Amino acid sequence: MAEFTSFTDLRAACLDLPAGDTSAADAVARREAELTKPPRSLGRLEDSVAWLARWQGRTPPRLARVEILVFAGNHGVTAQGVSAFPAEVTAQMVANFAAGGAAINQLARIAGASLRVIPILLEQPTADFTAAPAMDEAAFVAAVAAGYDAVAPDADLVCLGEMGIGNTTAAAAVAAALFGGGGARWAGRGTGVDDAGLARKQAVIDTALARHAALLADPLSLAAALGGRELAAILGATLAARRRGIPVLLDGFVSTAAAAPLKKVRADALDHALAGHVSAEAGHRMLLDELGLAPLLDLDMRLGEASGAAIAVLVLRAALACHTGMATFAEAKVAGKSR
Amino acid sequence: MAEFTSFTDLRAACLDLPAGDTSAADAVARREAELTKPPRSLGRLEDSVAWLARWQGRTPPRLARVEILVFAGNHGVTAQGVSAFPAEVTAQMVANFAAGGAAINQLARIAGASLRVIPILLEQPTADFTAAPAMDEAAFVAAVAAGYDAVAPDADLVCLGEMGIGNTTAAAAVAAALFGGGGARWAGRGTGVDDAGLARKQAVIDTALARHAALLADPLSLAAALGGRELAAILGATLAARRRGIPVLLDGFVSTAAAAPLKKVRADALDHALAGHVSAEAGHRMLLDELGLAPLLDLDMRLGEASGAAIAVLVLRAALACHTGMATFAEAKVAGKSR
Repeated sequence: MAEFTSFTDLRAACLDLPAGDTSAADAVARREAELTKPPRSLGRLEDSVAWLARWQGRTPPRLARVEILVFAGNHGVTAQGVSAFPAEVTAQMVANFAAGGAAINQLARIAGASLRVIPILLEQPTADFTAAPAMDEAAFVAAVAAGYDAVAPDADLVCLGEMGIGNTTAAAAVAAALFGGGGARWAGRGTGVDDAGLARKQAVIDTALARHAALLADPLSLAAALGGRELAAILGATLAARRRGIPVLLDGFVSTAAAAPLKKVRADALDHALAGHVSAEAGHRMLLDELGLAPLLDLDMRLGEASGAAIAVLVLRAALACHTGMATFAEAKVAGKSR
Repeated sequence: MAEFTSFTDLRAACLDLPAGDTSAADAVARREAELTKPPRSLGRLEDSVAWLARWQGRTPPRLARVEILVFAGNHGVTAQGVSAFPAEVTAQMVANFAAGGAAINQLARIAGASLRVIPILLEQPTADFTAAPAMDEAAFVAAVAAGYDAVAPDADLVCLGEMGIGNTTAAAAVAAALFGGGGARWAGRGTGVDDAGLARKQAVIDTALARHAALLADPLSLAAALGGRELAAILGATLAARRRGIPVLLDGFVSTAAAAPLKKVRADALDHALAGHVSAEAGHRMLLDELGLAPLLDLDMRLGEASGAAIAVLVLRAALACHTGMATFAEAKVAGKSR
């Protein structure tokens, strides 16, 4: 269970992180070099298995229990007309997840992953952050704890996604606060706003950055002021996974922005996280670059719901199957390199 | 069965191609627009389902029977020292495929695909094409026919891969002949040659282009002079799939170069083919650009064996699962766009 009830506690937890198991990763690399293929010819598949081993602390790594967590939240800033869809769609989509009708339901099944959808106080949207901090300290820390506690200690991998009408605006505000550049750099079309909606998003972000300028030096304070409950939960889940030896697949722009403050608290805090994909949302590629994350997939998706991360699970399963199932040169009596 | 025994027959078959079923693709797009997600937010997943429907002529498309065909051949040009591995590895890897120890065995299982490995006259390497055409007309057409006849008429999708020590040199020569630029543009490190090996590859390709200059105006003649039996078989399989209403996933540089001559015979001849991935082999991205093919994946792989195409099957399965399994806005009672 989460052991923090304030920014101070949470910051201490964010600084207290285990290192990865480099010997497990090295053992993976040694085996990869013996398998019947030219050295390094499986590229990112090989890297992915080593990364899983490093952060699970186990060789070979395991993907028996893959969990997809989708956090949902509502956003007061939707009053500013920043989304193409009405705010009630958040709850309607949560019902759609429960009924099995959303994209992530299909993708979780294909990926062999369990799906858990965790709505966080949908009936209490965050404050409109152009007028007040989205969340106060207590509300933020509680949402972080909800995410933290959602991570099963025995999971082998967690995929972190979200649903929340208005949350690309929150994510863009967080990214702008962390990395500079304002609304013009970070606002994108989200679920599909028109040009006027995009201009409103940019203005809303710039207004919020100005209003909360005094808070922006602290990554956790800015996440509370500009983020959302589902973003806070993703931050908490990312932190919990690291502390429990579980690798994380991040999803799109919102998921990545949600976890990003951790890296400002401690530079290696996202080393156990892989970007499942780069989305078509405008700021995502820039944000990944700022974080030094190289996405596994680039499929022009922009849905959220952990959909990109779920597809990345398939790549990891392929990678692990090669690692564990292939014969070595010696076993197969295949000759090695001659020059 | 293949009905051609000469360049002339084969050229006629390459020109006699069915068009895609645009109404099937349109039906897919109409359903995608009704599913519970922002319009176009599944990006290339949506495009992939429409592409499958178009070339299967069926809505929804089906992926019940996915076939991976791996053709193997030997190359006289290996005498020039163009590969990091000795030529006997081709047969050794075919044995490894049969024993289930190669990467593609693991990937086919993960992809839910059947795998067939088809060695073509391994005991008769093609001629060293610096000295003579790799194949004469009869040998080339026979290898094309072997690939043509390997495509099961009731397959829903075929993945085309290869194994053949020396075949990145052949592929680079074919690409250079089709698109210009010589050995310096197209030679890559293949299974991992050193700088001296790379220089030899470039020189070998330029020698071959000069020797066979009189043949290079004809795409089929150049494929015979510079290619290999497994490349010819991939060309034949690509052609057969088109004529039988089966979409094709190409794999890496060799697989793509093998099919490329078809596009020079008829400009739309590869419209039923998707590039499963872009490999790390130097020329592949350029070759895809020349062909107007956008790869689904970019995982820094360079193994061949249809390994990249097999992983792309997973993406197609994810795409189809979303298309067929998701609820519509009306079914899920989710509100549509408000602005």
